[in-house]
Amino acid sequence: MRHLMSPLDFSVEELDELLNLANDIEKDPKKYAHACDGKKLATCFYEPSTRTRLSFEAAMLNLGGSVLGFSSADSSSAAKGESVSDTIRIISCYADICAMRHPKEGAPLVASLHSNIPVINAGDGGHQHPTQTLTDLLTIHSLKGRLDNLTIGLCGDLKFGRTVHSLINALIRYPGIRFVLISPEELKVPSYIREEVLNRNHIPYEEVIRLEDAMDKLDILYMTRVQKERFFNEEDYVRMKDFYILDKKKMELAPKDMLVLHPLPRVNEISVEVDNDPRAVYFKQAQYGVYVRMALILTLLGIQV
Amino acid sequence: MRHLMSPLDFSVEELDELLNLANDIEKDPKKYAHACDGKKLATCFYEPSTRTRLSFEAAMLNLGGSVLGFSSADSSSAAKGESVSDTIRIISCYADICAMRHPKEGAPLVASLHSNIPVINAGDGGHQHPTQTLTDLLTIHSLKGRLDNLTIGLCGDLKFGRTVHSLINALIRYPGIRFVLISPEELKVPSYIREEVLNRNHIPYEEVIRLEDAMDKLDILYMTRVQKERFFNEEDYVRMKDFYILDKKKMELAPKDMLVLHPLPRVNEISVEVDNDPRAVYFKQAQYGVYVRMALILTLLGIQV
Amino acid sequence: MRHLMSPLDFSVEELDELLNLANDIEKDPKKYAHACDGKKLATCFYEPSTRTRLSFEAAMLNLGGSVLGFSSADSSSAAKGESVSDTIRIISCYADICAMRHPKEGAPLVASLHSNIPVINAGDGGHQHPTQTLTDLLTIHSLKGRLDNLTIGLCGDLKFGRTVHSLINALIRYPGIRFVLISPEELKVPSYIREEVLNRNHIPYEEVIRLEDAMDKLDILYMTRVQKERFFNEEDYVRMKDFYILDKKKMELAPKDMLVLHPLPRVNEISVEVDNDPRAVYFKQAQYGVYVRMALILTLLGIQV
Repeated sequence: MRHLMSPLDFSVEELDELLNLANDIEKDPKKYAHACDGKKLATCFYEPSTRTRLSFEAAMLNLGGSVLGFSSADSSSAAKGESVSDTIRIISCYADICAMRHPKEGAPLVASLHSNIPVINAGDGGHQHPTQTLTDLLTIHSLKGRLDNLTIGLCGDLKFGRTVHSLINALIRYPGIRFVLISPEELKVPSYIREEVLNRNHIPYEEVIRLEDAMDKLDILYMTRVQKERFFNEEDYVRMKDFYILDKKKMELAPKDMLVLHPLPRVNEISVEVDNDPRAVYFKQAQYGVYVRMALILTLLGIQV
Repeated sequence: MRHLMSPLDFSVEELDELLNLANDIEKDPKKYAHACDGKKLATCFYEPSTRTRLSFEAAMLNLGGSVLGFSSADSSSAAKGESVSDTIRIISCYADICAMRHPKEGAPLVASLHSNIPVINAGDGGHQHPTQTLTDLLTIHSLKGRLDNLTIGLCGDLKFGRTVHSLINALIRYPGIRFVLISPEELKVPSYIREEVLNRNHIPYEEVIRLEDAMDKLDILYMTRVQKERFFNEEDYVRMKDFYILDKKKMELAPKDMLVLHPLPRVNEISVEVDNDPRAVYFKQAQYGVYVRMALILTLLGIQV
Repeated sequence: MRHLMSPLDFSVEELDELLNLANDIEKDPKKYAHACDGKKLATCFYEPSTRTRLSFEAAMLNLGGSVLGFSSADSSSAAKGESVSDTIRIISCYADICAMRHPKEGAPLVASLHSNIPVINAGDGGHQHPTQTLTDLLTIHSLKGRLDNLTIGLCGDLKFGRTVHSLINALIRYPGIRFVLISPEELKVPSYIREEVLNRNHIPYEEVIRLEDAMDKLDILYMTRVQKERFFNEEDYVRMKDFYILDKKKMELAPKDMLVLHPLPRVNEISVEVDNDPRAVYFKQAQYGVYVRMALILTLLGIQV
């Protein structure tokens, strides 16, 4: 039995298969409409995450399966002191596959060790959120036609941004990848990513402070939020905040085929005037999130259509 | 694509069709049991409303569809600062139709402007609650056989009662409608309803203080709750509260074919001794609420059976 | 129409039928996969209980039915002051059967008196939790092959433990039952159970303080939690707490075919080192909980497969 804890759990070849399956689902959803008839997904969310939970639920329902679960810890047995390893053994009696979100790093891993059903890590603290990364990869793969030979700009909070770190780790497995890291000094990529991931693997990258200085070089711009409270002082924040807000004017500097991604929710880091730009694909990304989760459920359940 | 924001979004003719469809569903539910196979309803409830949410869910399940969503704002991305217009674009990727409840007036309308799927206003603050009005109309239409030539008593809090205002607006489109407005001075229908709705459209109405004084004239008695905190002073409340509690004794004053409706939940404004009176149809009303929502879902999705 | 309020609502013969049906479901689940097509279960949980709620939902989904409901009181109309008897009349319009959990004793009974659909008591305060008892009985029946001629050890908080009291009441209807009651002085079985249930029915039992002193006599060991706050003083708690923790060493004293049950969740009253002992069946018990609820739903809905 197989679980998904990290986006790197799949080899590049396996990932290819998964993404191809997702693309086939996109092309012919009816073919898969009954693939999971009689199967049940448990969504065990120890912290709320509507978007991720609903994406999983939509995926399972699209496959003809059904869904049960909980959407926050206070409605779960965790409040009574039950361990995650006990809970998953019970959930194994109720469902065929489980998507687990947990505020503590490693909780889904512990669950997977005691589970009789496949467990998907749907986000564990600041650690991993592999289905977001799969979503990002499928979006790029589908709309760019490739995952290699790309210049990817990562913009915003690169220090704490879990999705950014995962995406870097996932993309360096493909040839010809280069990064432009766009962030304030305070929020630069942590040194272990720079040293152990980028340098060790001889991945070319540059670091810039202002979004304007990167726009013209990018195939992909991956936006994330810059939270005010991350800055050292108010003055820095006021001086720099506009550097990281994507607007129409900055989009004029970008190549015509550059894509803008965002894990969502956005607050104000992308101006709504960008939404109608054909290069803005962050809402399409949400749709790809459903397809890739459908492919993932099928793969982990070993169901072939 | 069509949304439902206000009960007046449908013309009288369209409403006729909707109510006829609901009656056909009532007569032969099996015929519709698979009409929405493979379709998904998203229930996006930014404030809790169990009754309304479950009515929508029952409706979709009765049609063979499935349901996903959230039941309060704290389990949604709203907590992270996402706008309603972003949320609906995501929900559009997850579902085929959305029922949205929101504490802010106009939020469902904003959603509908950015949505790729039909949006149903399931209540927005003190503003509109169109499916309650459709429920009321279906109940009257089904049990009285007509929506015209009726004398309707509206009792209770007519000042703040959203359902009452909607019902007035919906019924004045039919000929021969007259109202008896039963409320304490403090809770009379707002003047804009009196002036711009009733007087402008030459709708006959009278205003009375005591329920007893209205009973014998009514075809329909629509009860609502009178909340203690709405009164100017405790003395008024004590003096008048019994005027607005419907009991067996007051029912004796009513015509034999008068119907009692209530949007529910009731607290004590209808004595439980009235429940077994055949004229008390407020629980049947809940059943009609499911039928009319089934008809609405089919209509907005453009599904013909 | 029939409801389930107490485990004693079923005669011994009816219970036999129910357990046989559950065993048939276990043997051939596919046979029942569409037994409830088009039926809806409402889970009305006025207090959270994830395990029980999900067990009911899994049961209904396994039968091909669907589920709607609420998982805590604050998302229900109860917050608006609606009575349980009104709520169930509404729920009767939305679903075909209802599982109700309520913090107040007797609330599901009140609901059943006003309901048009079967109501299952899914736990009412410290009073009854009949589907837990049915689960316990099915587990014993399935794994021991009988419900008569058994020596059952009940360990832990026997004073407040609702499941323990229910199980005693259910088992004394079978011949050859004897109990070993294992608890600290403070948490002994209440005297009305001793007098009116055990003595009156001439059921042999003994009371011991330490788990070790009971192990070698038991066919079944039913563990429950001992909460620190139940003890009179800290000193007693420290002195005695280990008496009620089941570990590998104590298991060595037990017969080879003794079964360990636990209603779950457990905190630390069973050491995890016991989990892999083939006699530890508390996780299997959770699976039986689904089967018995499937059988119950079919029985109350009068569906024969």
